[in-house]
Amino acid sequence: MTISVLGGGQLGRMMALAAYRLGERVVLLDPNPESCGGHVAPLVVGRWQDPAPLAELSRRGDIVTFEFENVPDEAARFLADRVAVAPPPQALTTAQDRLLEKQLFTELGIPTPPYRPASSLAELRTAAAEVGLPAVVKTRRFGYDGKGQHVVRSADDVDAAWLALGAAELLIESFVPFDQEVSAIAARAHNGEVARYPLVENSHRGGILRTSRPLSATDPLAPQAAEYIDKVLGHLDYVGVLTLEFFVVGGQLLVNEMAPRVHNSGHYSIDGAETSQFENHVRAILDLPLGSTETMLHCVMLNCIGGMPSNAALCALPGTKIHAYGKRGSPGRKVGHVTVVASTAAELQARLPAVQALVDAASDG
Amino acid sequence: MTISVLGGGQLGRMMALAAYRLGERVVLLDPNPESCGGHVAPLVVGRWQDPAPLAELSRRGDIVTFEFENVPDEAARFLADRVAVAPPPQALTTAQDRLLEKQLFTELGIPTPPYRPASSLAELRTAAAEVGLPAVVKTRRFGYDGKGQHVVRSADDVDAAWLALGAAELLIESFVPFDQEVSAIAARAHNGEVARYPLVENSHRGGILRTSRPLSATDPLAPQAAEYIDKVLGHLDYVGVLTLEFFVVGGQLLVNEMAPRVHNSGHYSIDGAETSQFENHVRAILDLPLGSTETMLHCVMLNCIGGMPSNAALCALPGTKIHAYGKRGSPGRKVGHVTVVASTAAELQARLPAVQALVDAASDG
Repeated sequence: MTISVLGGGQLGRMMALAAYRLGERVVLLDPNPESCGGHVAPLVVGRWQDPAPLAELSRRGDIVTFEFENVPDEAARFLADRVAVAPPPQALTTAQDRLLEKQLFTELGIPTPPYRPASSLAELRTAAAEVGLPAVVKTRRFGYDGKGQHVVRSADDVDAAWLALGAAELLIESFVPFDQEVSAIAARAHNGEVARYPLVENSHRGGILRTSRPLSATDPLAPQAAEYIDKVLGHLDYVGVLTLEFFVVGGQLLVNEMAPRVHNSGHYSIDGAETSQFENHVRAILDLPLGSTETMLHCVMLNCIGGMPSNAALCALPGTKIHAYGKRGSPGRKVGHVTVVASTAAELQARLPAVQALVDAASDG
Repeated sequence: MTISVLGGGQLGRMMALAAYRLGERVVLLDPNPESCGGHVAPLVVGRWQDPAPLAELSRRGDIVTFEFENVPDEAARFLADRVAVAPPPQALTTAQDRLLEKQLFTELGIPTPPYRPASSLAELRTAAAEVGLPAVVKTRRFGYDGKGQHVVRSADDVDAAWLALGAAELLIESFVPFDQEVSAIAARAHNGEVARYPLVENSHRGGILRTSRPLSATDPLAPQAAEYIDKVLGHLDYVGVLTLEFFVVGGQLLVNEMAPRVHNSGHYSIDGAETSQFENHVRAILDLPLGSTETMLHCVMLNCIGGMPSNAALCALPGTKIHAYGKRGSPGRKVGHVTVVASTAAELQARLPAVQALVDAASDG
């Protein structure tokens, strides 16, 4: 089988490496000829909007998937008329618009921070008064890693946000003083079977994920998260891996956003789980039984943002699983991650500071 | 960095997958355009004897290595005049000739079964009388997976072996009624540092490896094996991964043969060890610090010979790490392996029979 992937970044790269273990082949599509996925798999260079590369992808692949939610949903629908596509294009449509996404959560009874849409400055001012300050103003479309977001603390900030975000279709939501950020990752198979990873505790800096650590499968928040992600997966008749990001406030989950794909916070699973999120995504879309999501090793994932420590430095430290994406460093760019693994929690804690120090010294922000 | 690999089979394929984690690039050379390594890395199709593809490999790679010991050592020397090559070409020269290999072991004081060379039928008869029957007659060159071998139990068998093996340069060695077969795998760095994997217990059928299981790092045979492999590595000023295969007879090691490369019996390390043999090979040749060879999960590797169970069947069983090489099945052909992993020895024993049954049903022999 050949899997065609829309997107040739690191997620496509790691998806290809998982598919290879199963003996499958992969072809990637990306407008950037330097895409790091192209170092490990054939890369078709083309724009999402052009039918020619899409047709080539549908011809070369037995199934099409994506690694990037800002692929135009029209591209996914164009492909869905020609070849099997998973996850369903509707998941892209929903995830690409923060308003549709929030409305879906509301419809499914999944609590979110209070939010309002706004398409004019007047609407934004009214909405700000309704949700209360501080709040976060976000563009409805094309935001990721903190881009397209503006924190507002005063009426003046509201006007500034309107200008800063380009007077686009916006959403304003109440700023939540959260205790913790966690993500729920699950794979859903064609037959509706769901494999849920344990909740992952995340920490961000500069709007970008820095550290992820899988929690216990019996974490008290796990049943609530399972209920919520099952609702989204079922509603979308989803096939593949989906991620929900949550704020934890007073022991309750408030959903922040969804990603209809494998997720940075699940990278620990490559080295730490019985089945990685990438393999379970591949299994799901190929209609194979899903694998156990159990955590087998104590582990923490550290993102390398802007730059990466040298392999020589990382290789000298025990328990470091290096994932260098082969990308050139530049400010804010995810160039790799390192998962620190150990057989015991104490060993992990002993190993972590040295790796963290290396990663911090090489990263920006 | 780009690593050029002589050989595009599954060992080159898995070497590429290890190099990708470190952000490195790979190019393979193989005469077979269908080589399974070519599914995951750029493949130059060409004969080892032709200077043009070798020159291309030296141009495209920062360092050249090999995954296959029957690459002509002249090819390795041609490359060594142009680019860094590791392991040293002398290791190929030695490993390609069973007589040179045995002579090296003898010179280094590493016990082997009694052996004699023979280049005529008369010599073979005399040699058979000297080493005693039963014995194994082997071609000096180009043997692997039991090919080029003939067991002799009587004087008539000696004449038959001479004819069956094509009247070539031969070696006859005493047939050893061994208690166990084990292999020692170690990586040696440019600075002489050695990382030794625990001994692996192997079982063969039809001359082909079927099952490998890492032993405890404190196995009573480990110090003897370490002494022997260190001698070979040091003598050859070796860089990269090297394997020695041993017979265990009465609690003593008798060396059978060496492979100047990553080895089938080390495949468990991809899923079971802190650092896989493939990554340690890449680390060694790139002059990076070697990684821990500690076994982190209980595991057994099962080879798939001739055919492989379906992914659907394997994915349904817990703890199965699938490695399908993307090769078509044919008798005697290694088409993949499965490593069964578990957190405890008891869990591994519980998981193993179902996977073993699937693999046996799909394999030949």
